Amino acid sequence: MRILVTNDDGIHSPGLDALARIASELSGDVWVVAPEHDQSGVAHSLSLNDPLRLRQLGDRRFAVRGTPTDCVILAARHILDVPPDLVLSGVNRGHNLAEDVSYSGTVAGAIEGALLGVPAMALSQAYPRGTREQVSYDCAEAHGPAVISSVLEGGLRAGSVANINFPPVGPDEVEGVLATRQGRRSQWRAQVEGRNDGRGNPYFWLTFGHELGEPPRDTDLWAVRERFISVTPLSLDMTDERMLGSLSSVLRTR
Amino acid sequence: MRILVTNDDGIHSPGLDALARIASELSGDVWVVAPEHDQSGVAHSLSLNDPLRLRQLGDRRFAVRGTPTDCVILAARHILDVPPDLVLSGVNRGHNLAEDVSYSGTVAGAIEGALLGVPAMALSQAYPRGTREQVSYDCAEAHGPAVISSVLEGGLRAGSVANINFPPVGPDEVEGVLATRQGRRSQWRAQVEGRNDGRGNPYFWLTFGHELGEPPRDTDLWAVRERFISVTPLSLDMTDERMLGSLSSVLRTR
Repeated sequence: MRILVTNDDGIHSPGLDALARIASELSGDVWVVAPEHDQSGVAHSLSLNDPLRLRQLGDRRFAVRGTPTDCVILAARHILDVPPDLVLSGVNRGHNLAEDVSYSGTVAGAIEGALLGVPAMALSQAYPRGTREQVSYDCAEAHGPAVISSVLEGGLRAGSVANINFPPVGPDEVEGVLATRQGRRSQWRAQVEGRNDGRGNPYFWLTFGHELGEPPRDTDLWAVRERFISVTPLSLDMTDERMLGSLSSVLRTR
Repeated sequence: MRILVTNDDGIHSPGLDALARIASELSGDVWVVAPEHDQSGVAHSLSLNDPLRLRQLGDRRFAVRGTPTDCVILAARHILDVPPDLVLSGVNRGHNLAEDVSYSGTVAGAIEGALLGVPAMALSQAYPRGTREQVSYDCAEAHGPAVISSVLEGGLRAGSVANINFPPVGPDEVEGVLATRQGRRSQWRAQVEGRNDGRGNPYFWLTFGHELGEPPRDTDLWAVRERFISVTPLSLDMTDERMLGSLSSVLRTR
């Protein structure tokens, strides 16, 4: 089995090394192809306006000046020359819950794997507020191999991705593993902060408020807060089944 | 009604002007906030590592050095200071069908609008192969106002986006308007093309093969090929309902 490991935090991220170790506990060859630089928040971006550069760092280890999606494409089409048998993306520094999924480069790396037709999973490690510079991946490393094996045994549907989030606790404090729904935060969190540069010209940083409200019990948000490992099956088919019927009748009457 | 118009092709794109004209036929104030440069393929990217710059170009007309998602956030939090009542993204140069949806900055602009809690639609104009430099937006302009009004009358569910694609034909050659599913191409199309730079060092361009196979009749792919305007309701909740049950039982047994 050829296992492709990528991420969005970049080739130097300790979470990437944690995932390579997790992957090596499954039986197979581990190939690491990850971005040169931090690609957090790049979602399912493709580099269309810029060419990609590739740098080999060791045996089965490569850095790409591009996005996680670029990494998966370059791995399957050039480095491996064939699609891998499994794509693992992460372990992300910080959770990817609810609408984070849509912005996440980590989840997108797995989505590209699923488009490629192979089983694909995104792994993310939540951390307690204020500990961003010293995130521990112990929880992900201790439980990752068993969770991945379970999901593989259960069978990932073609065109689906498993979005796995580990709670911000030690390996022994985990309550269990739950299959969950993608949640939705109760408030739109994106904000902007205006500043002035050295010449007095304005610029803006995006900032994000903290989540509010009580998440439903079957969601990723609830599970991770309650110290469960959350596994959310995500479908690449975004068709809103419930809206399809009503839209049909409105459009037909014109 | 405040209508926010954005896109991913950038502030200088003729498709953006076409959408501003479409929006002005609805009753409301039209605000244009679009990227300075081409952002095709940036998906739902956020600028987290770089600050945003804003440039006012005229009355209710702004350019942002950032992504379509950045544009929507900056518009709602700073320029308008309140969420708009409708977000329209496009008219994209080229279709956004099947898995294009996941890479598209145009669709992402609408998704950010839906996260913001307002009705949001992405509009894209297909063009005949080989005519990329001279795309006509006549079809979108002729039918856009009526299609948008229909979708608004029918009611967009909160958290959903209408993905509208216009076929590559003149306004009078359109067969009708169909509510469709997001399709899936039969082959993974992403490829890489290796070249050498002036110093002999390799670099790679992403390329995309042409679609193959016969799309099912209820999909966006089929509708646009058959000269229909395609309206696909997309849900922001990507939970794979069918996989949730099977995953639950696998994880519980451990």
